[in-house]
Amino acid sequence: MSVRFLEDFAVGQIFKSGRKRVDKDEIFAFAREYDPQPFHLDEGAARQSPFAGLAASGWHTAAMSMRLIVGEFKPAGGILGVGFDELSWPRAVRPGDELYVKSEVLEVRPSKSRPDRGMIRVRNTTFNQNDEPVQVFTGNLLVPRRAAKTD
Amino acid sequence: MSVRFLEDFAVGQIFKSGRKRVDKDEIFAFAREYDPQPFHLDEGAARQSPFAGLAASGWHTAAMSMRLIVGEFKPAGGILGVGFDELSWPRAVRPGDELYVKSEVLEVRPSKSRPDRGMIRVRNTTFNQNDEPVQVFTGNLLVPRRAAKTD
Repeated sequence: MSVRFLEDFAVGQIFKSGRKRVDKDEIFAFAREYDPQPFHLDEGAARQSPFAGLAASGWHTAAMSMRLIVGEFKPAGGILGVGFDELSWPRAVRPGDELYVKSEVLEVRPSKSRPDRGMIRVRNTTFNQNDEPVQVFTGNLLVPRRAAKTD
Repeated sequence: MSVRFLEDFAVGQIFKSGRKRVDKDEIFAFAREYDPQPFHLDEGAARQSPFAGLAASGWHTAAMSMRLIVGEFKPAGGILGVGFDELSWPRAVRPGDELYVKSEVLEVRPSKSRPDRGMIRVRNTTFNQNDEPVQVFTGNLLVPRRAAKTD
């Protein structure tokens, strides 16, 4: 299946992504550019921090998770987020971790005002190689419906 | 002021960041790595999309906003997010936009169980050069208190 329309989604569906290994150099590179704090940049400082060791920026985890989701979960028209209602990082992402994402469809709602589209609510949980959750984000995506038949 | 402790924060305080110009090449580079969808990678495809033109990935906007916040808003011990309850992108970020962030302190709460720390709740709004909001995220940060005096 190349792309999915609203009609292809159902509550309870689960999509599982491929895997992504997190390298120390990538943690440093992202942090230098976007989140230059000692616990993301320096192993000594990270050991003294609440992370007790080098940890990826949460925004890096979010970005890597997005990359995994884009590869698997293919609504027609692309992944168009229209607001999230949960984003949390329950556990640090460490160098050498292998991440994957499970996306569970929580709701499927045709639009009342626009017959060509609808919304799905999805909980995306990112896990490490020990199946421990490192990120949860739940959000609403805009999804087109198949073109209606004309008489 | 180099860093701020819980006692240095008060409800209603507003911190304003420096500015960051968003270049087209940076939009492409982030999207290739983390959000490879046509409306973030290709100007022709972007014109045909709901964005009606090239737009930065929302996660790119989040990462750039974090970089701006790290430069201005300096809780002692770093910015330690412990969960967000709002993240939205009300407007697309375009090539050439200049972003800045206003962070408003909504709550300051000493911990009941841990006398050395507390939590602040902050709404971070990212604006473009026309003062239009492009991202809102509201979250809770862990902040240490100054060391208590001993008798």
